[in-house]
Order: sequence, then structure tokens, then C-alpha cells
Amino acid sequence: MKTQQVPQHEKISTRPFPRSKKITVKGKLHDINVAMREIETDDVRTIVNGEVKKEKVSVTVYDTSGPYTDPSKNIDVLKGIEPIRANWIADRGDVEELKNFSSSFTLSQETKSELNHIRFERTRKPFRAKPGMNVSQMHYAKKGIITPEMEYIAIRENQRADEIKNHSRDLLFQHKGESFGAAIPKIITPEFVRNEVALGRAIIPNNINHPESEPMIIGRNFLVKINANIGNSAVTSSIEEEVEKAVWACRWGADTIMDLSTGKNIHETREWIIRNSPVPIGTVPIYQALEKVGGVAEDLTWEIYRDTLIEQAEQGVDYFTIHAGVLLRYVPLTAKRVTGIVSRGGSILAKWCLSHHKENFLYTHFEEICELMKQYDVAFSLGDGLRPGAIADANDAAQFAELKTLGELTKVAWKHEVQTMIEGPGHVPMHMIKENMDLQLKECGEAPFYTLGPLTTDIAPGYDHITSGIGAAMIGWFGCAMLCYVTPKEHLGLPDKKDVKDGVITYKIAAHAADLAKGHPGAQIRDNALSKARFDFRWEDQFNLSLDPDTAKAFHDETLPADGAKVAHFCSMCGPKFCSMKITQEVREYAAQHNLIEEKVLEEGLNEMSNKFVSEGSQLYVSVE
Amino acid sequence: MKTQQVPQHEKISTRPFPRSKKITVKGKLHDINVAMREIETDDVRTIVNGEVKKEKVSVTVYDTSGPYTDPSKNIDVLKGIEPIRANWIADRGDVEELKNFSSSFTLSQETKSELNHIRFERTRKPFRAKPGMNVSQMHYAKKGIITPEMEYIAIRENQRADEIKNHSRDLLFQHKGESFGAAIPKIITPEFVRNEVALGRAIIPNNINHPESEPMIIGRNFLVKINANIGNSAVTSSIEEEVEKAVWACRWGADTIMDLSTGKNIHETREWIIRNSPVPIGTVPIYQALEKVGGVAEDLTWEIYRDTLIEQAEQGVDYFTIHAGVLLRYVPLTAKRVTGIVSRGGSILAKWCLSHHKENFLYTHFEEICELMKQYDVAFSLGDGLRPGAIADANDAAQFAELKTLGELTKVAWKHEVQTMIEGPGHVPMHMIKENMDLQLKECGEAPFYTLGPLTTDIAPGYDHITSGIGAAMIGWFGCAMLCYVTPKEHLGLPDKKDVKDGVITYKIAAHAADLAKGHPGAQIRDNALSKARFDFRWEDQFNLSLDPDTAKAFHDETLPADGAKVAHFCSMCGPKFCSMKITQEVREYAAQHNLIEEKVLEEGLNEMSNKFVSEGSQLYVSVE
Repeated sequence: MKTQQVPQHEKISTRPFPRSKKITVKGKLHDINVAMREIETDDVRTIVNGEVKKEKVSVTVYDTSGPYTDPSKNIDVLKGIEPIRANWIADRGDVEELKNFSSSFTLSQETKSELNHIRFERTRKPFRAKPGMNVSQMHYAKKGIITPEMEYIAIRENQRADEIKNHSRDLLFQHKGESFGAAIPKIITPEFVRNEVALGRAIIPNNINHPESEPMIIGRNFLVKINANIGNSAVTSSIEEEVEKAVWACRWGADTIMDLSTGKNIHETREWIIRNSPVPIGTVPIYQALEKVGGVAEDLTWEIYRDTLIEQAEQGVDYFTIHAGVLLRYVPLTAKRVTGIVSRGGSILAKWCLSHHKENFLYTHFEEICELMKQYDVAFSLGDGLRPGAIADANDAAQFAELKTLGELTKVAWKHEVQTMIEGPGHVPMHMIKENMDLQLKECGEAPFYTLGPLTTDIAPGYDHITSGIGAAMIGWFGCAMLCYVTPKEHLGLPDKKDVKDGVITYKIAAHAADLAKGHPGAQIRDNALSKARFDFRWEDQFNLSLDPDTAKAFHDETLPADGAKVAHFCSMCGPKFCSMKITQEVREYAAQHNLIEEKVLEEGLNEMSNKFVSEGSQLYVSVE
Repeated sequence: MKTQQVPQHEKISTRPFPRSKKITVKGKLHDINVAMREIETDDVRTIVNGEVKKEKVSVTVYDTSGPYTDPSKNIDVLKGIEPIRANWIADRGDVEELKNFSSSFTLSQETKSELNHIRFERTRKPFRAKPGMNVSQMHYAKKGIITPEMEYIAIRENQRADEIKNHSRDLLFQHKGESFGAAIPKIITPEFVRNEVALGRAIIPNNINHPESEPMIIGRNFLVKINANIGNSAVTSSIEEEVEKAVWACRWGADTIMDLSTGKNIHETREWIIRNSPVPIGTVPIYQALEKVGGVAEDLTWEIYRDTLIEQAEQGVDYFTIHAGVLLRYVPLTAKRVTGIVSRGGSILAKWCLSHHKENFLYTHFEEICELMKQYDVAFSLGDGLRPGAIADANDAAQFAELKTLGELTKVAWKHEVQTMIEGPGHVPMHMIKENMDLQLKECGEAPFYTLGPLTTDIAPGYDHITSGIGAAMIGWFGCAMLCYVTPKEHLGLPDKKDVKDGVITYKIAAHAADLAKGHPGAQIRDNALSKARFDFRWEDQFNLSLDPDTAKAFHDETLPADGAKVAHFCSMCGPKFCSMKITQEVREYAAQHNLIEEKVLEEGLNEMSNKFVSEGSQLYVSVE
């Protein structure tokens, strides 16, 4: 733990966003502080009854960056971040602190002195449900209990849109969305959260061994979420890179992180990531199980897999991708495909099934897995091992056969009150996306859908964040609850930090576009605030309100680097004479200066006004700064 | 013309694409050679009845790069590219070569010695229709004439999908699309092209003074097209940059180029671009007209504008954006908007209307404009001066009022047999895109729609190629005929070459995703070929078949730079043990080696096969190279 391999403070991205501050909103049912980001803007000018008014406006946004962007927090990755949920979990009285880890693999790793230098020094013991207890949020929800996690989520999802007072009409204005049968309330209440979780329509992935995570929800009646994949592989990457990648992904908006490591030191890497992650962590346990049998799929056993589940559950993994729907009889359905089976987990299990000619052991042991999950509140992410890997293979018999089985398994998981979401494709042309979404809702009883893209064409490697961002926005609108990002390096190589950021921003765009289309309350406030800043030539506000202030500012600087240009009432695209916004403002401000209500001017006094306008020089531009 | 300001050969991008060659397909009705690009691949392996077959496959793709990627062509930007349509135009016998230019502005420019060093030396005189003649493709189409342009387009649109023989089943396979009332034939015939143009459902923008352009068509029963904007402004940019930007944009797939220059030397810059452009060129003549009156909108007159139309028509501009629908009474409808009027042309005309309190002179002189257009076959692109510039302003009364007027003007243009398309927004959330498209088709009698994006959210300046690529793909699917690109610099600065490329590639993705969704015949061949190459680990083929081989290869090199990695049967994301495609292939090839038909193996012989598979070591991988 004391070597260069370990992440150091200075390597972690902790700079706050420009003109943003962390705020917290207190709970009413529980003693909780819900973190958000508030972006301050310059004075916003509005014309009311012919008078120019200035109004201080701040825009509150959903914040996934955790304590890293909070200057008041001392970040020490060697210790991990604050376990904000620790007391909430303990107070429920249904967990017990274990004396030691339950996984034989973990115990063996602990004894290896050669791993000392990369081992995270835990101060907390693992927790598990007391015998016979179920600690899942679904279990509480079904009992009618509103947990602190649920209240946290309700407050967080509202982004203070429920208490806005100082925003001008323009910021509150929002189009009525179209949400395809989803039931999005005007204000998210803790009870609404509870009910959605009880019905299985949403999940709160929050392992009791990951108390560092800030509660979040995945369901189609909430904001659309995005996931970022990180993970080393046998070929490249290191622990410190992966931790910084996780923090970096959260900074730009990742709602969950999946650690897909397949190389060396998987166990140790995961521990570092979890202890420093403010967002839920997902994994695909079959990857590590395969490492444990030397990469030979046929040698996988239920016992090794089971121990891996326990190992990861006690580390704090919040959701497991489990490919329990890859059944022996479905494998032949992939034979005519252009790209066969493209899910790593799917292909491993297909190989296991074929070579043993036995049914998938994840399917045959599914109820035992449920028993494990509910002791830690790990959520299922039922893997789509037979998802299409090419446009040609979209919505085919193999995928839909597996989806039907995932629907059956969902009901089994719900019987155990284990939270469950369903993974989806993949590569799907635009006209087949809605069919995919609708069928998932039908087969899986409205359990949340979690898709990879989908990519809407295969012909643009190097740009698959874009080919898939199109499909992601659409399926998010149609009801997908979480979008797994795709980076520009998809199909070509491992993403570096730039790729992670490009992937996350692209997916924030897709998710937000979907929120606007669904008509999520308050979703449009940020758009309106940014557009108003654009119309007012408040350049810094445009940058600060954007998803990526650094890039917006840098691009503006490239053409007009002078500081003066940041208050210029035109921009580099058109120059001063051709600026449509400047011309529009001239007309509006002429009206304001003459104490005329602008609509009235325009509707009734056009003739008079045009004479005055010309006689006063027409180029009139009066600043009210 | 002899100075450093002028573009030099070596500055122009002329490198052919890897393993691609220019091919030409001969016409049957006319003596024409239709240019396309053929991408060669390595041997494609297929398993037929248990036997491995190798097949040489080449994929033919639509090519907008003109002669620049043809090593057999000598490029000399000082002379311009070959006027391939010159004889076709002359042979119709309805045009006359003018002794001199008809525009007084052009004549005055010709006399200025200070412009000598930046003036293109024309060898051809301008042409115009003989008195009383109409030289528009719509006029010919309505007469039942199939022009060489129409046959060229029919052959070009098919991309040889009508004559494919050597492709494997996988490459021909295509999903049935959903095309919302469009009527896309299985094979595009010259007669189909003629009929669509006659009905006004498609346009062929091909000014008789731009014989260098390769005929292309814009209409919703054809491949979706994209436009790239270039143009200097008062603030930055130079002639040579703009010419190279045009060539560069065509290289990556721009179907048309709009020259939106507003700075100095507009006339001269445009001449260089047209003489070197293999794609149609569009402009917004009001920009230059405004320059001529020193940037004072109120000083604009019909006479100055008319002379500008003639000036540009005789240079060879193929379509004009004309904001004839910005009526005086519509201006007040923008008063409550968050961003008012965001179209430069729209705001200039709104200002003119208001200050004169007169109706828009483009509207009042519309029939005179039609008379001019048909003498050169310039197409209308009826401008959406009141398009929304923010999500908040989408689909509002102002935009739809103008759209209705554009519909009326379309009928006037058609009365004159002038080709017409309609421009559209802008900023529109996903759920309002289809309404916009449907209303345009209804109001404008199915004239082609040509939209800017639309952007589906306002909150991502720096990434507006992506926010708009989402909307562009969707509206393309719904029936939009051409998508005007948006670059990452939108709202922030002027695009450089990287931005132009990013914008073009993003829009090629959007257009192609739309073609797939609409079910254009043969659209999926390239996807299937690339995906098959992916499954076969033919890395170089993956790169070469992609929209941007350079980036795909560079990204792969970043993680696995060795040449050996280009034939590796795994990739850097998963490494060899976790490669799903490798595992799938192992199963398939095992079957092939044992002379078993793979579907049969999988369906009937699973048990036996699994025993053999295990007994022979399970990791079996037999190369058939």
C-alpha cells in the first residue's frame, strides 16, 4: 500500500466546477444531507412590463461527483471516502458485522504478503444480514418502510425544481413530454420512490458493504441514468489508472461504474475502486471466476462462482451482471448470426454449456444466488449474453428467447425480494429499438431496462459513442432506465481518460435528451438557463451551465481568445454585423427603452415604432449592464 | 492568382482511401460514367455445408470525394476540376453562352486590379437559358425527359446493390425498414428519379454554371444526404482554408457544401470553391447583399439583392437559401421566445421589415426570383428564418406560421417549375421532431425537407455535433431528405478542419442510421461486411470499411501498435481469454473441421459434439488462412 502503484491524492481529479458550489438539502423524515451542485450565474435581465429587471439566478443540478468536487472535504484515497450510509444500515438492526470475510478466496488473498503493497487497508469489517433476514431495499419497500436511501433519492431527483422561487418564467417553462406509459409525477416524493421499488419498477443498488455510495435510483419514472465501464484487462492498465478513471467518470456524470477488470489483481483493484466510489459499482463475477480457473471456461464450477459472489458482495459490489438466461437450447439460435455471441459472459457460458452438455449453472442455481443477494442487498443485472453484436443480428430469435427467460428469472428474484434490472443490446437499427424496449417491459414485468447503446449502425468504429448515443437517447425516451456508455474506442481498444470523458458526456446528452422528451419535471431548466445566457451574451454563464465547461471555454478561446470576447455581444461565427441575437435584442431593447410592452409594440405599434427606430439611427443598442 | 493566398495543389487533400479504388459505371441511356468507390477486402471465409469457402468481396460505396481521391486525375486548383456536365448542358440546346457577366457587381469586381492576385482565372463564360427557356431539371422531368443527370443519379444511388453477385448471404441480408409513407423502390431507375423530380418530391441542385458537379439528388425516397457549411467571417479565415475545407468535407462525405462567407472577398472565395467543387454549392445571398450595403439591414433593396442573385447564379451556385417566409406579421410571434430569432437571414429581414414597416421584399418579389432561378436551374432552399434557437422555442407559432408560408411559396415555385426544398430547425426535443417533419410534408406538398440538426438539448456546447446528430438521425428516418451538419464548435467558434471532419462523420452516421431504419435497398451491405470482418478478426478490413479508416486504425494502434496485432484473433479490450468472438468461432470451426453442418450440430448433435470437443482439448482453434 505504500508504493507508487497505489493511487495518490494528487493524481485524483478534485477541482470544483467553475462558479459551482456543493449544497446539501436536509431530509424531513431522516437525518440526511442530500448533495447537489449549484451553478451561479451573472445577473439575468428580463423585461417585465417594459422595464428591465435584473435577477440573480442559480441552477441546481444533479451531481454524481461525490466529495471530490467539494473543497471542504479532505480526499485521501488511501483511506477511502466517508461511509455516509454506515449508520443508516446499522440503525436498521438487521445486519451483523462479520469477524472475517466469508469467501475462501478473499481469505487466501489476505495471507499473501506479495500483495501487501497493493492491498487497501480496510478499517471496517464486512457486514451481512442476520440469519434469515433480507436487507434489500425492495424488502423494506414491500414492508411499507421508507428508508433514508429512498428519501435521499426523492430529494436528489427533484434537483430543487420543487422549490424554485427566483427563476424567471423562461427557466420554468417546459414542454409537455411524451412518456409511453411511464408515470412521472410532478414532484418525486419518498413514498413514490418506495412504491416504485416495491413494484420492481425501480432499483436502488446499494450494497450494505458499500456505505460510501450516495443513494441513486434506476427506473423509468426517474431521471435516466448512465453507467461507465472501466477495468483493466490482461493486456494493459493499472490500479491507479482505474481508480482515477472511476473518479473521473463520476466527475462528468456517471451514475454507476462497472468494473470489468479481467487482468491481474482484480480483487485488489476492485477494493480500491469501491472504497473511493460515491456511486454504485457493478461487476460481472464470471470474469473473475474464469480467472480463478486459469481462463478455461469448461473448468468453471458453481462452487468457484458462488465463492466469487460472496467475495465481491462482501467487498461492496452493488449489482452483479449474471448471465443466467443463456440456456443450452438457445446457443444454436446464434449459429446463423453475422457475429455470433458477442457478450464475453455469454460466450463463456455458451462454451461451458456446450462442452458439458448441461444447462447453464447460473440458471440451475438461480434461487441460491437470490439467497446470497438478499443478505447484502446486491441487485441483479440480468445479463444479455445473447445480445446482438451487429445490425444484422438485431431483435433475433436468440435475443428474444433469452429475454423471455430473463423475464421468468425476474419473477423468481422478486419472489425473494431481490432488486432486479435487465440488460439489453447492443446493435439495433433505429426502427427496431422501440420493439426491443416494449418487449422488455412486457416480458420482465416492467423491471428496469439497462442497455448498451444501442449502436444504430456498424460502420463507424472510432465514433461508436455517437452511433450508440443516437440509439441510447431514443431508448431512454422509450423507457430505458439506464444507459451503459460506449466510448470512441469501442471495438478498437481500451478507453483512456479522454475516451471515458467523451463517452460519459455523450451519454449525459442522450440521457438528458430523453428526460426532456419524457417531460421530467424541471429537466428543461438547465436548457432554458443556458439558452437565455446565450441570448444575453453571458459567455461565462454559457460555459458554466454546460455539461463540460472546460471544453466549451477552450473552443471559444480558440477563435476569440481575448478576455474582452467573453463579454462581447457577438460571436466569432457571424461577427458583429450578422449576429441574429444582437439584432433581435436591438428590437426588444428599443421597446424597453420606450416603456413599451414589447409584445404590444410588435403587435400594434409596428408602424410608429419603425419610424422612431429609423429616426434614431436603427443601430440602437443600449446596454443595461 | 499567383500568390501565397491562393490554394496550392499540395495543400489540398488528395490521398486515396486505403484499399479503395475509383470505379465508374457506364450509363445505358446516356454516355455517362458514374463514379463510385470500391473497397477491397481480404478473403472472406464462410462455412457452407460444413466446408470452409473463401470468397473475394468488394463493397461499393457512394462517393462524394470527386476526382480528389482518384490517383489518375491531375488536380490543379488553379484550373478547377473537369466540367463533366458541360456537354450534357450544351447538348440540350436551350442555353446560350454569354459574352460577359450580367451582374453589375461582378463586372465592377472584374475591373479591380487590386483583386488580381486572388481572382480565379476563368476560361469559361457564363451560361444562361435562351430567352423564354426553362433549364431546370424539374422542367425536363415534367416534360418526361430523362436527363443524363437523372440517369447518373439512379446508377449512383444503387451503389451497385442491383448487380451484386459475389457477396455472401450475410452481406445481402437486410432488415425490413419502416419508412413512414415514403415509397422507396428496390432498385432506383432513371424513370423513378424523373418522376420524383417532376412531382417536386426531390430536387437535383445542378446549376448550368457549375458543370463540375457530380449529379446528386435530395428527396426522401433516396439516400439521406448531408450538407457541410463552410465560410469565412469578418473575424477569421482565408480563401485557401475555405477551398481545402470544401475538398476536405467532400472527402469525408458531404453531399453539398454551403458557402456562408460573410467577410471580405466573398465573390472571389466563392469562385474558387465552385470551380473546385464536385458537389453542389449553396449560399445565402442576403449575406452578400448586406455586405454590399455596409452591413446596414435597412439599406437593403430589391435591386441590390437581385443583382446578387444573378452574380451568384452566373458563378454557378446550385441552391439559394431565401428567407421569403419571414413576414412582417410573424415577427411579433418571436417576442416571447427565449432566444428570439436565431437565423442570421431571418433577423436581417425582420429588421428590414420592422424599420420600413413593409412586407419582406423577398416575398413580394418572389415570382421575379422564380424567373431568375429557372434561367440557371438554381434550386430554392426556402429559409426558415424563424426556426427555434432553443428547446424552449421549438415548434412554436412563429416557426409554424412561417412553415405555412413556405408551403404557399413552394406552390408558386412549382408553378414556375423551379426546384424547391424547405429548410427546418434547429433546436427541437426528441418528442417534437416527428410533428415538425409531418407538418412540413403536409404544408409543403412533400417538397424535400432540409434541417439543421435538430439539436435535442441546449446544455452541451462543445458537443453539439452529438446533441444534433441524435435529432438528425431521427428526422432523417422520419423523412428528412438532407441534414445540415453541426460541428463541435457550434455556438462557440468557427470550425477548423478537425471540426469539419467531426461534423461530417457524425452526420454520415446519422444519415446512414436513417437509411438503415428506412430500409434503403443495399444500405446494410457495408454494416454487414464490416461486422463480418470484425467477427473474422480482419482488422484492416474493419478499418477500411469504416467511415474513417484513419481514426479507426489510429485508435487500434494506441493500445496494440504492433503489426502482429492487426492479424490477432482477439483485441485489446478483452484479451485472448475473454474474447467472445474467438470463443464463438471455436465452436463453429470445430463443427466445420468435423464436416458437420453447424446448425445441425448445434441443434441435434450437442451431446456428442460436446464430448468430442472436450476430448480434443476444448481450446481447439484451427486457422483456415
